[in-house]
Amino acid sequence: MRSSQLPLFTSKNDPADAQVASHRLLVRAGYIRKQASGLYTYLPFGDIVHRKIEQIIREEMDRFGAIEVSLPIITPAELWQESGRWDIMGKEMMRFFDRHEVAYALGPTHEEAMTDLARSFLQSYRQLPVNLYQIGRKYRDEIRPRYGLIRCREFTMKDAYSFHADEASLEETYQKMRECYRAIFERCGLKTIPVEADSGTMGGSSSEEFMVASAIGEEVLLLCSDAQCGYRANQEKTPYVGEPAEPIAEPPAMEDFDTGELKTVEQVAALTGKSPRDFIKAVVLEDAQKVVVCFIPGDRELSEAKVKNLTGLLDFAPAGAETIRALTGAEPGFTGPVGLKFADGETLNSKTVHVLFDRHLAGRTGLIAGANRTGFHKKNVTPGRDFVIKNSADIVAARAGDLCPKCRQSKLTETRGIEVGHIFKLGKKYAEKMGLTVLDASGKHLVPTMGCYGIGVGRTLATAVEQNHDERGIIWHPNLAPFWVYLISLAREEKERSMCEELYHKLKQAGVSVYLDERDERAGVKFHDAELVGFPFIVTVGKRAVESGKLELTLRRSGEKLLLETDELITQIRKMAEAKAP
Amino acid sequence: MRSSQLPLFTSKNDPADAQVASHRLLVRAGYIRKQASGLYTYLPFGDIVHRKIEQIIREEMDRFGAIEVSLPIITPAELWQESGRWDIMGKEMMRFFDRHEVAYALGPTHEEAMTDLARSFLQSYRQLPVNLYQIGRKYRDEIRPRYGLIRCREFTMKDAYSFHADEASLEETYQKMRECYRAIFERCGLKTIPVEADSGTMGGSSSEEFMVASAIGEEVLLLCSDAQCGYRANQEKTPYVGEPAEPIAEPPAMEDFDTGELKTVEQVAALTGKSPRDFIKAVVLEDAQKVVVCFIPGDRELSEAKVKNLTGLLDFAPAGAETIRALTGAEPGFTGPVGLKFADGETLNSKTVHVLFDRHLAGRTGLIAGANRTGFHKKNVTPGRDFVIKNSADIVAARAGDLCPKCRQSKLTETRGIEVGHIFKLGKKYAEKMGLTVLDASGKHLVPTMGCYGIGVGRTLATAVEQNHDERGIIWHPNLAPFWVYLISLAREEKERSMCEELYHKLKQAGVSVYLDERDERAGVKFHDAELVGFPFIVTVGKRAVESGKLELTLRRSGEKLLLETDELITQIRKMAEAKAP
Repeated sequence: MRSSQLPLFTSKNDPADAQVASHRLLVRAGYIRKQASGLYTYLPFGDIVHRKIEQIIREEMDRFGAIEVSLPIITPAELWQESGRWDIMGKEMMRFFDRHEVAYALGPTHEEAMTDLARSFLQSYRQLPVNLYQIGRKYRDEIRPRYGLIRCREFTMKDAYSFHADEASLEETYQKMRECYRAIFERCGLKTIPVEADSGTMGGSSSEEFMVASAIGEEVLLLCSDAQCGYRANQEKTPYVGEPAEPIAEPPAMEDFDTGELKTVEQVAALTGKSPRDFIKAVVLEDAQKVVVCFIPGDRELSEAKVKNLTGLLDFAPAGAETIRALTGAEPGFTGPVGLKFADGETLNSKTVHVLFDRHLAGRTGLIAGANRTGFHKKNVTPGRDFVIKNSADIVAARAGDLCPKCRQSKLTETRGIEVGHIFKLGKKYAEKMGLTVLDASGKHLVPTMGCYGIGVGRTLATAVEQNHDERGIIWHPNLAPFWVYLISLAREEKERSMCEELYHKLKQAGVSVYLDERDERAGVKFHDAELVGFPFIVTVGKRAVESGKLELTLRRSGEKLLLETDELITQIRKMAEAKAP
Repeated sequence: MRSSQLPLFTSKNDPADAQVASHRLLVRAGYIRKQASGLYTYLPFGDIVHRKIEQIIREEMDRFGAIEVSLPIITPAELWQESGRWDIMGKEMMRFFDRHEVAYALGPTHEEAMTDLARSFLQSYRQLPVNLYQIGRKYRDEIRPRYGLIRCREFTMKDAYSFHADEASLEETYQKMRECYRAIFERCGLKTIPVEADSGTMGGSSSEEFMVASAIGEEVLLLCSDAQCGYRANQEKTPYVGEPAEPIAEPPAMEDFDTGELKTVEQVAALTGKSPRDFIKAVVLEDAQKVVVCFIPGDRELSEAKVKNLTGLLDFAPAGAETIRALTGAEPGFTGPVGLKFADGETLNSKTVHVLFDRHLAGRTGLIAGANRTGFHKKNVTPGRDFVIKNSADIVAARAGDLCPKCRQSKLTETRGIEVGHIFKLGKKYAEKMGLTVLDASGKHLVPTMGCYGIGVGRTLATAVEQNHDERGIIWHPNLAPFWVYLISLAREEKERSMCEELYHKLKQAGVSVYLDERDERAGVKFHDAELVGFPFIVTVGKRAVESGKLELTLRRSGEKLLLETDELITQIRKMAEAKAP
């Protein structure tokens, strides 16, 4: 391809909103352009890379026995209502009405649509297992779209859904998909970390995320420091293993004490000289239906993910001051478990109140908590004696330094990651709710169990850039590069021009994809752009090449420069590109 | 591919709503499945064919110098407001609001988004011409989705948009795209008729549709019966060339006469013995903003397309009885040009009244028209004498038997067609409204002129079936067929099985794509399905093949059966498939 046919779309300025390398470089190097918040256009080079990733995914999914189909992107509300997710999906799901006032969603995922398809053709267990996938656009109305392709509102996803007669069959496909995902990311030159993950609103029993480690990752991963143990999980999913409560003699009776303007655990701990661990911290969340009051140890943070899974909170936020006043009879900052005006299950402003205690509070004694009285806290608070723990669960966020929940010997370490793939065991939830059954060998109805498997295509592209760039630009893996060779013509004389043309054609004939920069620009400008767009090989043809008969080959990743004759150059490039180690 | 890996999705019943062959066959043969009104899932075979068509389009567009990009499917309302089409697009455009109450459209087309992209990178005339295309989903909220993939609400379109410094450059690309479209449809094995078309809400100076002739086509095409003349146009676009008005002596004064319950031209013509041609027929349309009163010769039908283009009517319908009563002071059925209660430009129920006359009424004399009085018509009505013609235009639908508007010698004939492609000269409308300019050679601002070029991918697929099927099923062109060979295994013994396996592998090695039906079904069932799914070659391997050493090859299109040895069979298939004439 020639620059006269396919121009560069490079840009001189960084996008104003770029906080991360992939966003900045993909825009500057002319791979993508922002249309609106969270909406990106793929420019020609970006479109080529995107299709290369799609093709890698397609080939590997096919190789592992999945079958490609293509569903409508928009999905009737009816299907979401059958599964019960129409109300659960919240504002992240974009919705609209057609001319007949029928409601639809712009599919953020397709469990319902795929289960609907499956029930239209599955009749017998003999048709199982079957694993159907598609590669198509998805929509999520993110509160804060950011990081370019990493968190946007319209994106391409490969989503697969498998149907099975039993758990063993699901397990087999689940393991195949793990293998398939490893193969896909390896072909993309991406280093991923598989971690145990939270299933969120998907439901289901177990799930695993494929994470790309990155300082800008929005996911926190906790890894056991003992490689032998090998525990790796998303923080949202990691159980918190606290230290056991020390047995202490029965403390004196509770009493209120004046804390004036001091509200936070840290402030009151400083006042009393007590450790934050000896506090009961209150966190109150609310959505349109619920007020959820959470009590956790004073030295920990609440895991909103765990609370969301337990309570089904939707589009929630910290409770407003009005709600806190109604709940406690006091100003915000003095909420405690003793003397709340509303008990678990009661109704406050037509919202149901849920009161949750972290399981580590049970057995503790002599704690400090808010007194539900403005300007006061209580001391010597003892769960079980002073208040009843009705609902107890793990609602604290695990963190680095905690005991590993698997080996219970080593400590957890933390790293940040970007999710590029996710595999789930969904179980029978969708099949049951949507009435998908098949006949088993004895002619009885059997509800299939399901798995689902997603990969974000644009996010894979962006994280490939996050992992592979330097201060000069992108460094593509040959499998993803729009072209292998960036051929810089510095030709001024006819001889140089014809040498360049000859090389261009020879490379093409040898099956080496090549982009010829034949713009009327200085050598420096062209080399700068070549490094920015990041094809693995840069070749320069000018006066010197004609004189010496040798061409300058620059390896983009290492910066190494080689002087080679034409045939040798082609052989070398082919060898290196095919070995995928430029 | 084996049936054990990729099952057939054939179905025994015709879909209840199938009125046309492609819809019926694509569902029965398991290529597509309906999800909801106007929404279809592509099953594995359908998805393969769809991607083959996409690839043909991509290759030809690239060959003709277009550049592939990929825009978001959803488009901010802002862009549509800049062009002025947010209000014009009507209910056919699906719209929604995001969580911040910002409005978006599910793009039915992308002129605005592409012009927005162009203004982000076009600075100089030296960057022109440029032709950008994408292949992606589009949305149109059809009033009556029908005919399966032919008129649905979500579909894949290839849409290209070109930008030019001058008309000559636009003309050059427009002609290239005509050639490109011919090449695309030829590779798809589709016979198309290019016709002059109406530009509708797209604006622009000229456009051409690529039509597939079909009895079920929703478009009416008018063709000059003289092939030398070659005039071919969409009825919507065809000017009506009426016979000249005969000069008649001044008729007597108008007078009302009693027509009782008789309202239509036909009824009153029968009563009076006059020809319908001597009537003035009234048609009143209204939308939310306008009431459009149209008067045309009594023997003709109104062209709603022409009236829509003239007046900008949106989502219109025949005017209601209330409107007619207010307009005429009479019951519906007696509307005429003399004595309307509202004149052109006046306001009726806060809607603007437009009064339009077909240009063929001028010069006519002694006509019959409604009297705007219940139970009465007027005779001897003479335009110019009895009422003023303020707005006169061609608003009558041309039809077969009319004079050809090009040669004005021969008569028009009619055929019906399905639009599969459409090319437009858009002119400067979008660039002007959206502020797209580039600097010309002298450093002055220049507004580029534009073209746009669309192909419906799913509709191309469906019309290929409309043109290529018989009572037994689909007959695919080798370029579109999911596989070339449908290999029927009738193996019962090991020898037969190994012969079949050997053939399967030999075909694959020879680059012949093959689908092996290894189901445990009777020969008749398999052959029935083979004919239904419609791959060009059917090969049977069973006892007879082992005994004779010859394989039975059935050519799907002709039904011809050949007995061939393995190597000969492979050679023959390759030859026929590559010659594209099975």
